[in-house]
Amino acid sequence: MYNYVGKNLPRQDGYDKVTGAGRFTHDVRLPGMLHAGVLRSPHAHAKILSIDVSAALALDGVKAVATWENSPRVLFNGSDAHTGTMPPNKPVLDQYVFDNVVRYVGDEVAAVAAVSPGIAKEACGLIKVEYEKLPAVFDPLEAMKDDAPDVHKTELKNSPIPPFQFEIGNFKEAYENSDYQVEVSMKVPVQKHAQLETNAAVADYQGDSLTVYSTTQSVHPTKQILALIMGMPESKVRVLNPPYVGGAFGVRCGLSAKAEPIAAILSRMANRPVRCVYDREEDFMASDTRHSGYLYAKLGANKEGAFQALEIRGVLNKGAYTSFGVEVVGVMCAMSLAIYRVPNVACHARTIYTNVQAGGAMRGFGNPQGTAIVEMAVDAMAKKLNMDPKEIRLMNVLNAGDPWCLPFPNTSTALKECIERAADRIGWDKKRKAAKTGAIRRGVGLAVGNHVSNAWPFCVDFDSVYLRLEADGSLQLATGVPDIGQGSSTTLMQVAAEALGSEFETVAITFSDTATTPFDVGSHASRTLYAVGICILEAAKELKRQVLDYVAAEWETKADEITLEKGMIKGAGKEISLRELCHEAHLSSKEFIAVGRTTPPNAPSWHAHAAEVEVDTETGIVRVVRFVAAHDCGTAVNPQIVEGQIEGGVAMGIGYALREEVVRDKNGVPYNNSFHKYMLATAGDIPEIETIIVESHDGSGPFGAKGVGESAMVPSAPAILAAVEDAVGVRFEEIPLTPERVLDGLK
Amino acid sequence: MYNYVGKNLPRQDGYDKVTGAGRFTHDVRLPGMLHAGVLRSPHAHAKILSIDVSAALALDGVKAVATWENSPRVLFNGSDAHTGTMPPNKPVLDQYVFDNVVRYVGDEVAAVAAVSPGIAKEACGLIKVEYEKLPAVFDPLEAMKDDAPDVHKTELKNSPIPPFQFEIGNFKEAYENSDYQVEVSMKVPVQKHAQLETNAAVADYQGDSLTVYSTTQSVHPTKQILALIMGMPESKVRVLNPPYVGGAFGVRCGLSAKAEPIAAILSRMANRPVRCVYDREEDFMASDTRHSGYLYAKLGANKEGAFQALEIRGVLNKGAYTSFGVEVVGVMCAMSLAIYRVPNVACHARTIYTNVQAGGAMRGFGNPQGTAIVEMAVDAMAKKLNMDPKEIRLMNVLNAGDPWCLPFPNTSTALKECIERAADRIGWDKKRKAAKTGAIRRGVGLAVGNHVSNAWPFCVDFDSVYLRLEADGSLQLATGVPDIGQGSSTTLMQVAAEALGSEFETVAITFSDTATTPFDVGSHASRTLYAVGICILEAAKELKRQVLDYVAAEWETKADEITLEKGMIKGAGKEISLRELCHEAHLSSKEFIAVGRTTPPNAPSWHAHAAEVEVDTETGIVRVVRFVAAHDCGTAVNPQIVEGQIEGGVAMGIGYALREEVVRDKNGVPYNNSFHKYMLATAGDIPEIETIIVESHDGSGPFGAKGVGESAMVPSAPAILAAVEDAVGVRFEEIPLTPERVLDGLK
Repeated sequence: MYNYVGKNLPRQDGYDKVTGAGRFTHDVRLPGMLHAGVLRSPHAHAKILSIDVSAALALDGVKAVATWENSPRVLFNGSDAHTGTMPPNKPVLDQYVFDNVVRYVGDEVAAVAAVSPGIAKEACGLIKVEYEKLPAVFDPLEAMKDDAPDVHKTELKNSPIPPFQFEIGNFKEAYENSDYQVEVSMKVPVQKHAQLETNAAVADYQGDSLTVYSTTQSVHPTKQILALIMGMPESKVRVLNPPYVGGAFGVRCGLSAKAEPIAAILSRMANRPVRCVYDREEDFMASDTRHSGYLYAKLGANKEGAFQALEIRGVLNKGAYTSFGVEVVGVMCAMSLAIYRVPNVACHARTIYTNVQAGGAMRGFGNPQGTAIVEMAVDAMAKKLNMDPKEIRLMNVLNAGDPWCLPFPNTSTALKECIERAADRIGWDKKRKAAKTGAIRRGVGLAVGNHVSNAWPFCVDFDSVYLRLEADGSLQLATGVPDIGQGSSTTLMQVAAEALGSEFETVAITFSDTATTPFDVGSHASRTLYAVGICILEAAKELKRQVLDYVAAEWETKADEITLEKGMIKGAGKEISLRELCHEAHLSSKEFIAVGRTTPPNAPSWHAHAAEVEVDTETGIVRVVRFVAAHDCGTAVNPQIVEGQIEGGVAMGIGYALREEVVRDKNGVPYNNSFHKYMLATAGDIPEIETIIVESHDGSGPFGAKGVGESAMVPSAPAILAAVEDAVGVRFEEIPLTPERVLDGLK
Repeated sequence: MYNYVGKNLPRQDGYDKVTGAGRFTHDVRLPGMLHAGVLRSPHAHAKILSIDVSAALALDGVKAVATWENSPRVLFNGSDAHTGTMPPNKPVLDQYVFDNVVRYVGDEVAAVAAVSPGIAKEACGLIKVEYEKLPAVFDPLEAMKDDAPDVHKTELKNSPIPPFQFEIGNFKEAYENSDYQVEVSMKVPVQKHAQLETNAAVADYQGDSLTVYSTTQSVHPTKQILALIMGMPESKVRVLNPPYVGGAFGVRCGLSAKAEPIAAILSRMANRPVRCVYDREEDFMASDTRHSGYLYAKLGANKEGAFQALEIRGVLNKGAYTSFGVEVVGVMCAMSLAIYRVPNVACHARTIYTNVQAGGAMRGFGNPQGTAIVEMAVDAMAKKLNMDPKEIRLMNVLNAGDPWCLPFPNTSTALKECIERAADRIGWDKKRKAAKTGAIRRGVGLAVGNHVSNAWPFCVDFDSVYLRLEADGSLQLATGVPDIGQGSSTTLMQVAAEALGSEFETVAITFSDTATTPFDVGSHASRTLYAVGICILEAAKELKRQVLDYVAAEWETKADEITLEKGMIKGAGKEISLRELCHEAHLSSKEFIAVGRTTPPNAPSWHAHAAEVEVDTETGIVRVVRFVAAHDCGTAVNPQIVEGQIEGGVAMGIGYALREEVVRDKNGVPYNNSFHKYMLATAGDIPEIETIIVESHDGSGPFGAKGVGESAMVPSAPAILAAVEDAVGVRFEEIPLTPERVLDGLK
């Protein structure tokens, strides 16, 4: 039993956020601060022939105007992939802050720093740009054709990287020899993160140093990208969250769109702090999205229903710049092939440049797309075999220790228990068998999946922390990982207090500031609690050793005969509080400090979602009426926070399945750039989510914990699609299931 | 030869300060920030019978009013002595933020937080306080008498601590047996730091954490004091400089007067950030001063002039609160007895409570007082023996390795060379012999001294630093020590670059922020370059080991066959830049981080000052016409910065000798609380200071360096007094030498 792990301790950021006192990048104001405005391309593809900024510069209150002509000519990748792409792969650097070619509607043309946002905006309107329009392409299948316009010059037509592919066993032969075969395809949309705080940065260039307050979810990689762009040593670039971030979901793994470099360039030009805050329209049109695309799967099974062969293929729409394009296809293929025990698997996935905004990291990172097509194939196979979708999954899902395609061991799984409990809770057996008649029809569906607990070894992925005791025995934890809303500033403190034996109330955390912390790759890949937790454990072990050695010498006993728990040190018939001990040590010039440095292993988190839907066959409206999410997160360090993650993921999954899609006109102009027009799932669309936590206590994680941040996004849409199929007998091949699509499908 | 040590690299803070871009506490503005006003006692000693704050609270814009009735009832000591007093001594905690007794004119009665400074001030005027006036005492000799009022209840009348005393040999016997005896006495004034930026803090209490931007010169000790006052774990209190401090000179070793706790208490009450900035009058009347007092010395010598016995006695005016009172009497006695080779020494010093503002730390820390009386005795002895004051000093000063009274070894001295060169430069032999006639008379004087390179073992005094390499090979140094204007942010970077073998241009420093740095005792006792430098050396050694071990493994050679200099790694016929190496290491999940943790040794810095003055016997005006300062600082890491320290110290010493003195009326009301009335030495009073740097390359310090921050304050006044005596034949026994005193003396 633990003192703090497994307990619903209140969120440490709760008070600040509820009272409005918590500070976000949007709140940062510095003396003399200017405001940035950005001029964006109205064209999907064009060459800039000339830019005349004289009228803008002449406007009263304008302090600097940046264009491709006076800005750093440095190619970069705005995502963590910049220095996180794992050798032998190399990151694709295909973007300038400002270029003389624009490649999507919204691409940056120029930026202005002025004394007010209004003047900055007015000045943008005074910049005269002469464009030569170029032919544009928006669909990746079109862009692969020989006569398509080149978004970038590449070896293989519009391909930033060669196709991602691998095979285990012999897929073709096994598929052909299977007793039953199914083949499915699906089209998935552009989903947008729609995080509450838009991308933003306040840059402050002083002397030869740069400080940037930002919404990034990875301050250290962002520091690296900025150092390269600005031509500065990394040591002289400080990036920090102030300390809160209003959601992220992957959109700012690395830069917050271009908020940081735009603010930094203008600050260096104007010699004053510059605030660059995207408005909602800019945030929608000019930051990364989930990759849309086309997916295909083939699944073969024997007569008993045991899977023999599985192939997935995909063409993802990269948009205009690579971002995380190298990694996302790999994760999409590898994760979705690592759910079931299949002796022969193959995959082939491409990511293709087009003239739309870039696809990048978003909760699930390729896995929602891959899992959607695999689960569609599994349901199709169940139908073909006339098996219960639950039973075919229970028969085929991986057991712990089973070989799989992933480059780390399958250390634990409670997936079968997740399936049983989710199905049981939703009333699976009874509801599947119920008759589906009338105008409004109910159905239930099930989908399962697996996700990672960090990005290793897909990406460079490691952590370091400082842990030190103050002179009153209170504990200071410093980590470069942010709290982007997931509650990690609380859970990491729980891990630290438990691991050292501190009192929780005396633990403090400093996070997400490159000046206060050693390198951390940041918050992505459901890694924060798992990977940073492991690092804290290492540091706490060392710190505890220092304390116990010190006490052992004083008490003339052995360190292993002394214990430290909840701030009390006991052994050899003596005791002293950590508070008194540290005070004594301070007076003897002794400070206890430990550095943790770890490259985490990885561990799978498993999940089974069961959805019940109501389909109105007259209006085409699909309503989710019940949703059960059963998750194997290893150990729930703070169950309430785990539930919060699951509920958020399901909500985003419901939106993905039913409502969310960025739509463009034929010129590539996005239509729904606002919360009015982009149909997020709201409270009215989301039923109470029933969360079931199943703890497998994975041996690799801190106190047995695994990742949970993204999992719930992964199988939500396929569970809903399956439920719709159960209700109306149609398996839809394109999401979101808008009323129009549903009515079309029902015809 | 070094790459960076010994070079006049430009100050890293220069650009920020010259352009006005550098941020000080006075510049900090936080969203929703309130402004504090402080109501101060008009009485030197009184009991508060009642306080009515209702009218103040009712004023529009007032958000909180703090008095002794609603504030933490926690005794503290506002100086670093709070947790820095060395066992077995204990810090004297004798102060509340607000008390129901006021003990000097200016003592804090109440504080208001309001939306503007004007409203805060107006509200202070609306607070109704009923006082019971108590008898007051201002002079320490008076306060020692049995019938004097008690400033605090103490065992020994108005004594926070027992008298400080020690004896080596047998002073009384040796003095009585000496061939020649002299006995001298002197009265020294209250000198004020008059630092450019007044004491200030901006406190931001959020959730259960407190962040305080402050002018402190020791963020970690200040964090400790605040944690105690506020009843919070130290880990949840962050104190930082933002990052600059507009001078300090000891006035904010620990709290910046009460700016931090007043701002913190009001911030917690109002739930908003609060800015508390002392105006100049408050800064003069309600922050620590140099200790005034009465000094006495007896010196015995044999016929040849060799010193046999030396005793110093002193009574210092403690003022109303102890601050650094425990330590200052010890340093005064110990340092001034550690200049000359004297077999029998004794001392006895007391520090006595009175109803004036507290004496505390100020450049020299007791040593200027002690050295003044010792040098007066030495001059008197030279006169008695008819010896040249230079010769008697050359004969008697300590050699390296000589036994002395200090608790650390006398590792190095170039004092004799300093004396010779200073005397030579000023034209000593010729000028001493010149006839002194006419209304305006010239004279030359000489004084010598010794100072520390940190406070160990007088105080708890230690350092820790983080040193880490970024993925581009640039170096990040994090130290809790501030740059209070002395240039340490540059010199510490020189030490780090030299020690590791980095390129200077790629080194960055983060300083004086308890969130970014491990414990450092702060900037005092001329310790910054010496003590933190030693700590950087230790960390750099460890960091270099990590790097070379890593390369050695890659190159299959031994680490000791590889060198790292100016960013290049070479050995075994190969080479790689630190930049490339760190990039490779990053891609292999390897970060190089080292922690330095050191308790510094100590080393004496020696100095000889020669002054030439002009005394107008008709007006009494004394003018310093030449000033030569020869300093043994071990190694000058940045000679220009060393010269800056010396020039600043001499300027302060000239003020101490001739102009500066806080004067009070009979009710204890200070008269000269402004730059108009407090007579700082200005450019018109200070001749060009001729600095001579003599390097003894002390083995204990970083690259041979020793302290230099305070030295030049120590012997400046005695050199001037000696020069005045040479000019007019009178040795004055009270400073400053105002025209009135000079004319009185000449009568």
